[in-house]
Amino acid sequence: MPPAHPFDSSYLRDAADEDKLKEECGVFGVIGVTDAANFVALGLHALQHRGQEAGGIVCHHPEHGFNSARRFGYVRDNFTKQSLMETLPGPLAIGHVRYSTSGGKAPVIRDVQPFFGEFAMGGAAIAHNGNITNADALRKELIERGSIFQSNSDSECIIHLMARSLQRTIPERMEDALRRVEGAFSVVAMTRTKLIGVRDPLGVRPLVLGQVADGWVLSSETCALDIIGAKYVREVAPGEMVVINGNGVESHFPFRPQKPRFCIFEHVYFSRPDSIIGQRSVYETRRQIGIELAREAPVEADIVCPVPDSGTPAAIGFSHESGIPYAMGIIRNQYMGRTFIEPTEQIRNMGVRLKLNVNRALIKDKRVILVDDSVVRGTTSRKIKEMILDAGAKEVHFRIASPPTAWPCFYGVDTPKREKLLAATMSEDEMRDHLQVDSLRFISLDGLYRAVGEASGRDASCPQYCDACFSGEYPVKPSDQIEKGFELKAAE
Amino acid sequence: MPPAHPFDSSYLRDAADEDKLKEECGVFGVIGVTDAANFVALGLHALQHRGQEAGGIVCHHPEHGFNSARRFGYVRDNFTKQSLMETLPGPLAIGHVRYSTSGGKAPVIRDVQPFFGEFAMGGAAIAHNGNITNADALRKELIERGSIFQSNSDSECIIHLMARSLQRTIPERMEDALRRVEGAFSVVAMTRTKLIGVRDPLGVRPLVLGQVADGWVLSSETCALDIIGAKYVREVAPGEMVVINGNGVESHFPFRPQKPRFCIFEHVYFSRPDSIIGQRSVYETRRQIGIELAREAPVEADIVCPVPDSGTPAAIGFSHESGIPYAMGIIRNQYMGRTFIEPTEQIRNMGVRLKLNVNRALIKDKRVILVDDSVVRGTTSRKIKEMILDAGAKEVHFRIASPPTAWPCFYGVDTPKREKLLAATMSEDEMRDHLQVDSLRFISLDGLYRAVGEASGRDASCPQYCDACFSGEYPVKPSDQIEKGFELKAAE
Amino acid sequence: MPPAHPFDSSYLRDAADEDKLKEECGVFGVIGVTDAANFVALGLHALQHRGQEAGGIVCHHPEHGFNSARRFGYVRDNFTKQSLMETLPGPLAIGHVRYSTSGGKAPVIRDVQPFFGEFAMGGAAIAHNGNITNADALRKELIERGSIFQSNSDSECIIHLMARSLQRTIPERMEDALRRVEGAFSVVAMTRTKLIGVRDPLGVRPLVLGQVADGWVLSSETCALDIIGAKYVREVAPGEMVVINGNGVESHFPFRPQKPRFCIFEHVYFSRPDSIIGQRSVYETRRQIGIELAREAPVEADIVCPVPDSGTPAAIGFSHESGIPYAMGIIRNQYMGRTFIEPTEQIRNMGVRLKLNVNRALIKDKRVILVDDSVVRGTTSRKIKEMILDAGAKEVHFRIASPPTAWPCFYGVDTPKREKLLAATMSEDEMRDHLQVDSLRFISLDGLYRAVGEASGRDASCPQYCDACFSGEYPVKPSDQIEKGFELKAAE
Amino acid sequence: MPPAHPFDSSYLRDAADEDKLKEECGVFGVIGVTDAANFVALGLHALQHRGQEAGGIVCHHPEHGFNSARRFGYVRDNFTKQSLMETLPGPLAIGHVRYSTSGGKAPVIRDVQPFFGEFAMGGAAIAHNGNITNADALRKELIERGSIFQSNSDSECIIHLMARSLQRTIPERMEDALRRVEGAFSVVAMTRTKLIGVRDPLGVRPLVLGQVADGWVLSSETCALDIIGAKYVREVAPGEMVVINGNGVESHFPFRPQKPRFCIFEHVYFSRPDSIIGQRSVYETRRQIGIELAREAPVEADIVCPVPDSGTPAAIGFSHESGIPYAMGIIRNQYMGRTFIEPTEQIRNMGVRLKLNVNRALIKDKRVILVDDSVVRGTTSRKIKEMILDAGAKEVHFRIASPPTAWPCFYGVDTPKREKLLAATMSEDEMRDHLQVDSLRFISLDGLYRAVGEASGRDASCPQYCDACFSGEYPVKPSDQIEKGFELKAAE
Repeated sequence: MPPAHPFDSSYLRDAADEDKLKEECGVFGVIGVTDAANFVALGLHALQHRGQEAGGIVCHHPEHGFNSARRFGYVRDNFTKQSLMETLPGPLAIGHVRYSTSGGKAPVIRDVQPFFGEFAMGGAAIAHNGNITNADALRKELIERGSIFQSNSDSECIIHLMARSLQRTIPERMEDALRRVEGAFSVVAMTRTKLIGVRDPLGVRPLVLGQVADGWVLSSETCALDIIGAKYVREVAPGEMVVINGNGVESHFPFRPQKPRFCIFEHVYFSRPDSIIGQRSVYETRRQIGIELAREAPVEADIVCPVPDSGTPAAIGFSHESGIPYAMGIIRNQYMGRTFIEPTEQIRNMGVRLKLNVNRALIKDKRVILVDDSVVRGTTSRKIKEMILDAGAKEVHFRIASPPTAWPCFYGVDTPKREKLLAATMSEDEMRDHLQVDSLRFISLDGLYRAVGEASGRDASCPQYCDACFSGEYPVKPSDQIEKGFELKAAE
Repeated sequence: MPPAHPFDSSYLRDAADEDKLKEECGVFGVIGVTDAANFVALGLHALQHRGQEAGGIVCHHPEHGFNSARRFGYVRDNFTKQSLMETLPGPLAIGHVRYSTSGGKAPVIRDVQPFFGEFAMGGAAIAHNGNITNADALRKELIERGSIFQSNSDSECIIHLMARSLQRTIPERMEDALRRVEGAFSVVAMTRTKLIGVRDPLGVRPLVLGQVADGWVLSSETCALDIIGAKYVREVAPGEMVVINGNGVESHFPFRPQKPRFCIFEHVYFSRPDSIIGQRSVYETRRQIGIELAREAPVEADIVCPVPDSGTPAAIGFSHESGIPYAMGIIRNQYMGRTFIEPTEQIRNMGVRLKLNVNRALIKDKRVILVDDSVVRGTTSRKIKEMILDAGAKEVHFRIASPPTAWPCFYGVDTPKREKLLAATMSEDEMRDHLQVDSLRFISLDGLYRAVGEASGRDASCPQYCDACFSGEYPVKPSDQIEKGFELKAAE
Repeated sequence: MPPAHPFDSSYLRDAADEDKLKEECGVFGVIGVTDAANFVALGLHALQHRGQEAGGIVCHHPEHGFNSARRFGYVRDNFTKQSLMETLPGPLAIGHVRYSTSGGKAPVIRDVQPFFGEFAMGGAAIAHNGNITNADALRKELIERGSIFQSNSDSECIIHLMARSLQRTIPERMEDALRRVEGAFSVVAMTRTKLIGVRDPLGVRPLVLGQVADGWVLSSETCALDIIGAKYVREVAPGEMVVINGNGVESHFPFRPQKPRFCIFEHVYFSRPDSIIGQRSVYETRRQIGIELAREAPVEADIVCPVPDSGTPAAIGFSHESGIPYAMGIIRNQYMGRTFIEPTEQIRNMGVRLKLNVNRALIKDKRVILVDDSVVRGTTSRKIKEMILDAGAKEVHFRIASPPTAWPCFYGVDTPKREKLLAATMSEDEMRDHLQVDSLRFISLDGLYRAVGEASGRDASCPQYCDACFSGEYPVKPSDQIEKGFELKAAE
Repeated sequence: MPPAHPFDSSYLRDAADEDKLKEECGVFGVIGVTDAANFVALGLHALQHRGQEAGGIVCHHPEHGFNSARRFGYVRDNFTKQSLMETLPGPLAIGHVRYSTSGGKAPVIRDVQPFFGEFAMGGAAIAHNGNITNADALRKELIERGSIFQSNSDSECIIHLMARSLQRTIPERMEDALRRVEGAFSVVAMTRTKLIGVRDPLGVRPLVLGQVADGWVLSSETCALDIIGAKYVREVAPGEMVVINGNGVESHFPFRPQKPRFCIFEHVYFSRPDSIIGQRSVYETRRQIGIELAREAPVEADIVCPVPDSGTPAAIGFSHESGIPYAMGIIRNQYMGRTFIEPTEQIRNMGVRLKLNVNRALIKDKRVILVDDSVVRGTTSRKIKEMILDAGAKEVHFRIASPPTAWPCFYGVDTPKREKLLAATMSEDEMRDHLQVDSLRFISLDGLYRAVGEASGRDASCPQYCDACFSGEYPVKPSDQIEKGFELKAAE
């Protein structure tokens, strides 16, 4: 295996939400507007929930050529400065927000996308949402053939594969490159004159097409179309490549067709509630999950409280279905950011307390149903339970808007190792005892499928979604991980 | 009038919530703990909603004396750096967050509290929440007598009055000084050995007392006690001065007693919903406002949506009382911060869109009740209405959780000039037409009083609260403002 | 004694020249030009050798009023940014560079001059070069009478004394204030319409008057007139106050006349060699010192080398008089700045080596005369000697261009405590042995007086200069220091 | 030609010395010491005169692997921060300071060396002083074969050539790569275990070997050995590759031998006067140039003044030989840095005045000989002449310590285009008239050769040095430049 790359700087990881799965990326691109980079900045701001660590923009101007900026931190703190935005002229731009590197080292600016490469026929930039499951093998092969990698990012493989393609045009070279790549990817790319979007054959990660004035937009989610006033046109189809220039949108299907397997967790947690996926409102899907959950796992109680903010729509649905009043039992501090120095040992559970506070007067003497989107390590769930009991609740019932998360994701989501997932080693009852709550129930996998609109639930012989994190059934073999020792679920 | 003071730097005002009244300050102090400044940092973080522009901490250590730090920006971004916090040692510290200067000039670090003064008997620092209504007159008098002001802040008068007092102790000098001061004030102060808290005789602004381990805490709100795990003891009473040292809490009442007039807007908007004021949960009060509003101003509709986040509890109450389902029709972007550069004129209403997005799929073809906490200029209400209609709503009904805001506040809240207040120049019906909504109703003043627990409503002869912003009845004469031309409400 | 003031930030002291006396301040002011602050920035840059720690500018514009900026660090790094300079408009400005605070605490921005005060008749700003020898007593008195000090700087007394004066105009109040002040001061001040300069009755610190286009300039040294192309007019006389407005320069003499005692060390080290003091070129005076030194203390050797850069003119003079060739035996690194981390203990004497390197090939096997301007603690001299011997010199002879520095300065120069001055505890021979050099000779006090143009040397009964650092004869009683235990030289 | 690369940030060019040739780089490496990066920081500080724009360090630690930092600005401002240096552990490190990019675009951090590459057998970093004259051709070829360039730097070719070599070890791959490269290069490189140094066959740029404690050092100049207390061992020979590990120094000669042609301008200006080149003190060589110049071009005058600081040794030599007194007629401001905003048009020649001031009292009524190291565009010479005359000099005679600079350098020095070089279009007399001085004389090429120790002057048939900037005789064909239209000197 190649040696680790040197790194340049250190960076503080955001302390909030440390017990959630993290979407690793959001991508956005625009062509045919004045000052495209400003649109991209707005789009990335609307996609910030998909990656908070860093963001980057590459743009092209007929006179000023390619320009780029990559920064750690929030879009709003970097890509709002006029002095910076003025260095990013032109009618064509793409951008990327990301959560983290694949490795465990400190993040480095070189790993921040979009990546750029000069080819004999001109430059191109690409931004990638997803994960390449054969990246280690590809990287090793490319290095042996003389490629110099500049980042630790798996996505850089794509640009090197493009550089070595014998095709004459950049879109053709991208097809060549992506045919060598396994895994999940939604790619937004650009040349001097074209905006390009591609989704992997399974369509694991989202990508939508929009229109703004005379220009075109590609975005991970529809909420980023709204912010720039763009009209939603359609999803880029699984396995489709769209190539957009002044003449409009050309569609190609360079891969062997497969049955789509969209990531079901996008519905549960990753996407914003105001986005629309597959004609469905994400908010409505989550409310339906709450309804299903109330049907599957009813319990007598005085109030239904969301764990803010991600549990809110499911809690509203649960309250609606059960008739138990909805209430804000936990208040989120809007100003949360970096970690505080712990003042003394007198103060426990500070991490959660900085972000969440219990509405003590409301909770006291109540039987409380807490609705959360998922349980990953279980550390936050335990702290929340303690805060609720400390405030005088009589009973605490957890209702979880997803099935037990028992398997890591290898398709562009940051998950702990399998042994750190609470559901990998415990049954539902064991988790209840571990968390010391009065009851704990997860929605069933079938219930979840019903909530996303599959009336007859999951088709076990050929699931309609990628649900590997719940089922352990990986639609693309995680070959690098297997090489490193990961064991697939034993055939039943 | 004295000349304006020179300023040092420029600063970008936060664009979010530009159409709300702003609490100008939060105060916090601790004595008797290790590294008190860390506790103050946490407390100020929990009080950040009371002032986002700047924060300051002064502390005292027996060996290292007084130390201080003042910074623009959020507490989380400044007072979390170990290198800074290490310069703030000792068991006694006070802090302050603030929204803005009284003047219109760019903010300067010299205006950031706490203020510090050396007296013949030692140093003292004070942090002030409120506003001194005779500050201009006091300042003029003090300058004529040879005081040198270092800030543009009215609060600096207090420290100069203390410096000129002939009393022998700092608490006595503070009494002397505060007896000269008119207006609303909750003060947290410290000497080398004492933590001091004072509320004005009307008790307009809040101040509570708590206990943490062997130490004592003073805070604007109880939510800041929770974050450090402190126990709520009681409110500091209107007109009370508490002086706390190693021997415990001494109570004084240096002012002529008056009937209290607590700010009713703290219940409506300023305080955090998880705080407790006068034994009442703020969240519950707001939910009650929603219930009252549903009784006073019912309307047929499909969903009740809060304008996030401040309208949420009242919307829950409205839904509960009316039976109309509660729903999240508007989604707030959690990553909002400074303003973006407007990309082009194609994009209108960007200010609101950066912060809020409509849940289009939910809103379409619905009759929507929007519950908001208040209407100030009306600019944001209008934009929200447009976004809702643009998403396809059939009807839009505004329900406002406070009476019409028709008068400016002179007691520590940032309000526009009277002529900018929509309710100062329009009736409820005129406002409805102006906003072009299907209906617009405010809670009545009596309804609001009922919601805060006054079963028989407002006692017009002797109101139980300060409600000047609604009624125009100012419990303390705003003498500086009258000097500048402000006209009181004509006697009826 | 009053308690120390809280401080705000930490700052790294410049490591270079740590074994020199330091001038504490330079002052500069301009009236009657467009964008006066730009002129002041240039002037302060030319005076940077008088104070490297921090700089400040206050200016006034008829419309924009007073504005100011204070910054730590070099003028070139702060006052060259257009974004900052644009906040400093107007035809009238003053500025200040300083070396350090009087106390030992970390420097704070509040201590950076000019100081500003609002008086009943308008604002005024002052910048002060020198030291007030009765500042502690004044400060104590002012605090007892109710003044609030905002800095640790003695110079702040002046503004408080002005605030308490009963005079009607600011210049009159300044006269009032300065009559209460003892010590050495050259003050540059401004009101909204006037530029004011004052020197103490002894004229210890320099101040010159210049003309640029239609405007007037006040500056510590003439080299700062050159940089803005100003014409040198004359020195402000000892005890004189000049008040400059649109009508020209008015001259006042508010103090009781005394025989002048200009600081002789300005000739030796503080002033720049290209400045002119009392009609004499500083460079030429220093060259004359070298000539006198060669006459007083000749020695056989191969080369005469300056300790760069301050020893250079005297070395040129020494070489000229002795006929021994002048050579650059020590090379100064032009890029010196903050301290480096010492890599390991293997490397000794790094502090000096970072700044100076021996020209080894030149020095080897030579008898070397090293000419330095002064010996303070002797620490640097010792390290230089070691470097020279290490490079293979056969003999090392130190020749010092000033008499032994045996007494601290209390008139605006940073000197170590008396016991740290090598010459306070050792004779010339003992110092030679201590430094382990082949010979060590200082110029005599009479020789120094001859070099500055007093043909018959020092008039012991009534010295023509302040030479307290050499003679221990203090022309103004250092009363604060005596209070703190400093012992004057016993009468002989 | 490949498209321009996108750039990331803007940067202000240092204003000082804008009329000098600029060495583009300095290199430094250490192996076998604790915390090698600290040594490299010190070494780069001593080499700062060879490149002020940016610096970089790469290091390797057996546990922590490769780490790196690249920064714009001075070494002292970046590589002195403990927080940064702690991220650079290990016993092996190399570093680089550079003046500028080859292109005209804004500098970007990606162009800052050392460059790093992962190969199949491990990582390697290289730092390059010099210029590759066939870089454009190599880059084009490499891109066509699929290499992705990450910088605009010609030096990156080396790492890509190494990546494509079929050799088994990194030193062998480096030999392979450097055999493809034309031009001038002194390279310092490292693997995980080895420090490597190489000079091109002509030895145009310097590189020396030293020893410190148990470790070894490679440096552009000996002055950087002195700063870390290292012992000078020898020069790396032209065409030599040294490979250093725990077992000591191995020497290879991978290139076809050629007669060396060291850059003669290193003696004249680039190297520091306290460095030793080819057994000769640079200071002494420059003093000899002054002596030769006094013999070749004597003139009657009152004083000899250097243009500081580079003209100083030659002025000392000129004074010594001519008997005319040496004097500091021009004083350099030690605090020079970035450009100032020009205050108004009243002030001309500010660029020079910020850096240099005339010692007016000395110059007045004198006949002045000014000794400068070179004349490039002549712009500064003209301004200095004006300042000298403005101060009242009677006559101004320029004596230049190098022959007329008539040709650009293509071997790692930043020179203006040929048409901007004053000497390319004017004879010595024409230049004198152009500068309007009383006389102007350059040293002859033979005189310069004598001064560097070639007693019989230049061997025209086979010059002992590279003197292309004076003679137009380029020892390596500048093929990229010829491709772009540069015309070689016509054969005579």
